[in-house]
Formats: sequence, structure tokens, C-alpha cells
Amino acid sequence: MSPALERVRIVMSHTTHPGNIGAAARAMKTMGLERLWLVNPRRFPDPQAEAMASGATDVLARARVCASLDEALTGTRFAVALTARRRDLSHPVMDVREAARMLIAEAEQGDVALVFGTEMWGLPKEGVMRAQRGAQFPANPAYSSLNVAAAVQVCAYELRMAAFGAPAYDNERFEAAAYEDVEAFYAHLERSLVASGFLDPAHPKRLMERLRRLFARARLEKEEVNILRGILAAWEQPNPRKKS
Amino acid sequence: MSPALERVRIVMSHTTHPGNIGAAARAMKTMGLERLWLVNPRRFPDPQAEAMASGATDVLARARVCASLDEALTGTRFAVALTARRRDLSHPVMDVREAARMLIAEAEQGDVALVFGTEMWGLPKEGVMRAQRGAQFPANPAYSSLNVAAAVQVCAYELRMAAFGAPAYDNERFEAAAYEDVEAFYAHLERSLVASGFLDPAHPKRLMERLRRLFARARLEKEEVNILRGILAAWEQPNPRKKS
Repeated sequence: MSPALERVRIVMSHTTHPGNIGAAARAMKTMGLERLWLVNPRRFPDPQAEAMASGATDVLARARVCASLDEALTGTRFAVALTARRRDLSHPVMDVREAARMLIAEAEQGDVALVFGTEMWGLPKEGVMRAQRGAQFPANPAYSSLNVAAAVQVCAYELRMAAFGAPAYDNERFEAAAYEDVEAFYAHLERSLVASGFLDPAHPKRLMERLRRLFARARLEKEEVNILRGILAAWEQPNPRKKS
Repeated sequence: MSPALERVRIVMSHTTHPGNIGAAARAMKTMGLERLWLVNPRRFPDPQAEAMASGATDVLARARVCASLDEALTGTRFAVALTARRRDLSHPVMDVREAARMLIAEAEQGDVALVFGTEMWGLPKEGVMRAQRGAQFPANPAYSSLNVAAAVQVCAYELRMAAFGAPAYDNERFEAAAYEDVEAFYAHLERSLVASGFLDPAHPKRLMERLRRLFARARLEKEEVNILRGILAAWEQPNPRKKS
């Protein structure tokens, strides 16, 4: 686990539906976040929260229930509040990607918090003013109402991306074909095409060039070249029964 | 609406819980996606889907129900399948951010699809093989089980970010203070501090430097400088009653 992710508190203020608390716990755990703070939840603990948490009931079991946002923010050095509305004289607002980067950077030095308001009304202005920054989703202006647990999922994902960067995928696990093997395949292919009558050596047009283009995009692997040459050899047999 | 987002099909294959279909529709609409394709949903339409869709029942109403993944992908030029597992000989895999960028780029030229499997098992290998790429979440290796609607929310968000870029927030709406006004404030502040006895001109230490550092970080606005100078003037009155 990243030490920075360990220092992020997800604070849910006055959440109405316990199912959303459970879904948020699951969302957090999938991204390696474990510290959930609940400010005056309407119902908690609750079987619906347990059900929606799926395999993340441990996050619920360790959730801290507090009576005020002040209590949830005590001990933090930086807090960002999710807010759907713009308000005059309000805090500087960022998108959630930038907010995640800033939270992870600040978490190097201590606890930080990301605060979510209620399902219907978000966070009241007094709540936003207790944070140092506001954050928003780049939502559809015609319908911007994210479910609160879905909002937690996106933020948790952005926090993990900020902490670890995009994962590296080992997509080149198979040995790439060597230049000379690919060229030998092209030569074999061309002979086969001439023998079959499909390629007229007197008027080759750009057939080989187009085929090279296709296989270049695919970036052939060593084993694939062997398979392709096997296929060519099979095609070259005038009659399959002769093969054995 | 972005023409690229209009060309993105969200394909949900064999979804078990209708609530997840509704939550996915809501997640899509919050990010400006509207084309939902359902391959053999267990129950659809269904009141639970309607309830979870909240204000996005129009997306459900226009959802296309099909009998096979082939049908849902017909007419697309590029498709990415979400997959939690790595498999030998599988397609190249990317993270969802990269997948979103690629889908939006390909959508310039025609329809594209992002395919989600079932709640329990994801997409079977045959399904993944019908797409051109695989995509994964950078999830917690100890618990990587995202809810399918939460996964749709993150992907829809990444598609919107890829289509429009990070939104620009107009955080500098108030007129910044001019250099000379800020300097006049510092001079006023210093006079006040000397007059109050807090700053000893013989031993100033680094007090003014520290105060400049604080106000520089805040990047004072024109109106704020006026307020601060008003406060200084008030403090300088030996007795508040003299003021008026």
C-alpha cells in the first residue's frame, strides 16, 4: 500500500442512504483506500451498508463516526471538498484529477481529506469553507448528478493514479521476431504468391508493400513467424493428402 | 454534446442485476454518454433499473437490447473490452485512461464500443477476443472487484476527460492587486507594526520577509488590499471610539 494513500481520509457528511456508504467503502478498497470517516450518517451501521460493501466490510468496520466535520478534519493538513455549485467568494476550484494530485502530494507530509456531501444537496457552504480547496467533476451540464458512491469511485481511482501513475502493462511478453526471420517470411510469402498466380512478377503493383505494411503494424512475434511459414508451406502443397 | 461521445456505445453483457443497468445509465448521462447496448440482460426493463437510473431513465428507454455481442458490435470500427484477468495470447491491454483516449480518437471516424462483462465473471475470453484491445483498472491487487456501474462511471468520466480535456476553472475572477498597491500595503503594514511596537526597526529579524511570503502565496486581489489597509487604519486608531 502506498504511504500516501494510507493518509487519505474519505469523509462522507450526513449521508442519507446506508447503501451508499457500503458502496463507497467497496469503491475505496478497490483503489487501496481504507480510511472512511462518517459525519452524522443517518443510519450506520446498517445491513444495507454491509450488503453493498461486498468484500470491503473491513473498511466499514474501521469507519470512524463523528458528530461534526470539524472532528473529521482534526489532524489533517489539507482538505478538498467536492462541490457541484460555484459560489461567489468561494475557494479555488479544481477538477478531481488535479485535486487528487494535490492531495497525494500533500499526503507526503501528513493526513489529508476529501469531503463528500449528501446525496441531495452536496456539502453546504460552511462545509466547503472548512476545506482549503473545492473540486468538481467535469460533468454533463445537462445532468451532473453523480451518485455519491460513484463519485467516491472516480476520486479513489484518481487518487490511485496520482499515487502510482498509470500501470505499466507487459504487453510484449512474447519474443519479437528478429529482422532476418521476418524478411525470410516476406520472401517466402512472395514466392508462394507468385507460385499461386496471385502475384504477377511482371506487374507486382504494390502488393508486397501493402502486406509489409499490415505485418509491420502487427509487430510479428517469433512464434507467429513460425506459424505463418508453416501455413505457407501447407498451402504450397498441391494436394493436402500428399503432406505427411 | 461532443460528436465523439455520441459515437461511443457502452455495451453491458449478460448483466445480472437490473439495478446495475440503471446505475450505469445514470453514470453515463452524468458524463454525456447516451448509447447503452445490453447483451442478454437477465431482467430488463425492470423497476429496479428505473429507480437506480434516477434522472437518466431516457438513456434506459433508448437502450438497445441484443441477443449477442456480435450484434452490439456490428457497425463499430474499434472496441475495447474491460477485463480483470490477464490471459496468455490475449489482446494488448491498456489502462482505462489510455483506452479512453484511444476510443475518442477512433470515434472521430465512426462508432466505437466499450464492453463490460457480468458482475461475477467479467467478460469471457471469447468476448474479449471480439474487441481489438483490453483495458484494466489500476486496482488494489488485494481487492480489485469494482462494481460494474462504478466501473462504467470511471470509464465514462475518462471518456469525457479525453473528449474535452480537463475543464478550465475561472478561479481568478476578481481583479488581482497591482504591484504598486501591494507594495503600498507592505509599507503600510510595516509602519503599523513599528508603531505598535511588534516590529523593532533596530532588530527587524525576518518579519517582513515572512509576511511577504504569506501574502505572496495568497496572491492578493485588489479589493483584498483595500480591506487589509482599512483594517490597518482601524488598528492604528489609539481608541476605536475616536474613529468616526
